[in-house]
Amino acid sequence: MNYGKMVPKEVRKLIREEKITFQTSGMCDGYAQANLVILPRKDAYDFLLFAQRNPTSCPLLEVSDAGSRKLKYIAEDADIARDLPKYRIWENGKMTEECTNIVDFWQEDLVSFLIGCSFSFEAELLASDIPVRHIEENRNVPMFNTNIPCSPAGIFRGNMVVSMRPMTEKEAITATVITSSMPRVHGKPVHFGDPKKIGIRDLSKPDYGDAVTIKDGEIPVFWPCGVTPQAALAAAKPKFAITHAPGHMFITDVKNSSLKN
Amino acid sequence: MNYGKMVPKEVRKLIREEKITFQTSGMCDGYAQANLVILPRKDAYDFLLFAQRNPTSCPLLEVSDAGSRKLKYIAEDADIARDLPKYRIWENGKMTEECTNIVDFWQEDLVSFLIGCSFSFEAELLASDIPVRHIEENRNVPMFNTNIPCSPAGIFRGNMVVSMRPMTEKEAITATVITSSMPRVHGKPVHFGDPKKIGIRDLSKPDYGDAVTIKDGEIPVFWPCGVTPQAALAAAKPKFAITHAPGHMFITDVKNSSLKN
Repeated sequence: MNYGKMVPKEVRKLIREEKITFQTSGMCDGYAQANLVILPRKDAYDFLLFAQRNPTSCPLLEVSDAGSRKLKYIAEDADIARDLPKYRIWENGKMTEECTNIVDFWQEDLVSFLIGCSFSFEAELLASDIPVRHIEENRNVPMFNTNIPCSPAGIFRGNMVVSMRPMTEKEAITATVITSSMPRVHGKPVHFGDPKKIGIRDLSKPDYGDAVTIKDGEIPVFWPCGVTPQAALAAAKPKFAITHAPGHMFITDVKNSSLKN
Repeated sequence: MNYGKMVPKEVRKLIREEKITFQTSGMCDGYAQANLVILPRKDAYDFLLFAQRNPTSCPLLEVSDAGSRKLKYIAEDADIARDLPKYRIWENGKMTEECTNIVDFWQEDLVSFLIGCSFSFEAELLASDIPVRHIEENRNVPMFNTNIPCSPAGIFRGNMVVSMRPMTEKEAITATVITSSMPRVHGKPVHFGDPKKIGIRDLSKPDYGDAVTIKDGEIPVFWPCGVTPQAALAAAKPKFAITHAPGHMFITDVKNSSLKN
């Protein structure tokens, strides 16, 4: 099966039938994939406000109506309770279960947050011949906790998590221009160069994901990362939450190219 | 008094002392001014979601913590209950009063929404020698109801309201590039040319503001307008709301130039 050449609706059908229960990386070339956070209505206001105050690390592609398993804007005929290959159930900040659908966990007051993902801008970087090292090395992107505080909102707070891609200074300039035009998928870098300036001690030991090779003449470039809201969620310890399992994303009907200004 | 050369903190002090009770247009050159909507916490979720779903017409610069009269991000030492020159009180969708402060109306659960304003991008247009006709003619910008539906959220719904500025095609291209880099203050135009395509019948009869001259060789260019959320508010008829009076804006400490991507 060449999942890269299939359209989102076809792949979501295979996921819904639980024929796909693995990571979605590389599926549906050109289409945006999204992180998922689901919260009861009573915690949804704080999370929506957290996203409003931290739009670079938590760029919202869609927020569902409370209780609805459908989406209105970024995917047609989707069922948010079945259309991701793997989910995680959280109780009081602890992951209690992984599952391939959340039909039995659904409640009348749940709100789904679909959050933009750096897969979208990586496609644009590759199209401009900017190297994306973790793709070249077939690894997960390296991600780091920083000392950059998020703006708190209600129960949600914490520091920004960043993803890192090494490249030359010249490539970093082009990458800045490209990603600055895509604020709905994290936008421009938050830092480049000395990792210590944002509280990162060792680039060879990422807090999430895998380390990648940094070649001579390359600098690390750091972008706000969609793991930030998950870290804020883990710290807030709401009574109940659901997220996607890492790498097991929601595939939208939205083209990456349409996420530009 | 040359209010244009004063910094926001100085002007806000004069407003707080009720020495300024008139329109803020032209004050504090280079600094962003903001629209204000205040709602009780129970209606704030729907409004926050409405803004998330309609970011071009309702770009949020800041949302306060519930009950707090202070702001954290766009102004230092501000008092949202005293720092606008004129407010409007709304009950069940009807304006019941205008006043110069809202101290006596303040409630423990009120949330303030500060919304970006086209004053910010007009400054950038003028800096690039794009004419802004209503400023030249010393009028209010012409605004029109359209047939472009907003994405509804809870009790809030309605069509987009647009502002119109006439210019040549060449100027429209430059204006598109400039404003597309400023999504926090409405961003790129939503339409140019034939007004009928977006449901506008007569450019000489704006629904809000004043008509302006359209010269030979000019086309009308339309931007999403901050009156959209006020129209949605008027239609939703929440039990209680407060807004700024038209033209009597909140002056932020944020420079227009910092509202670029």
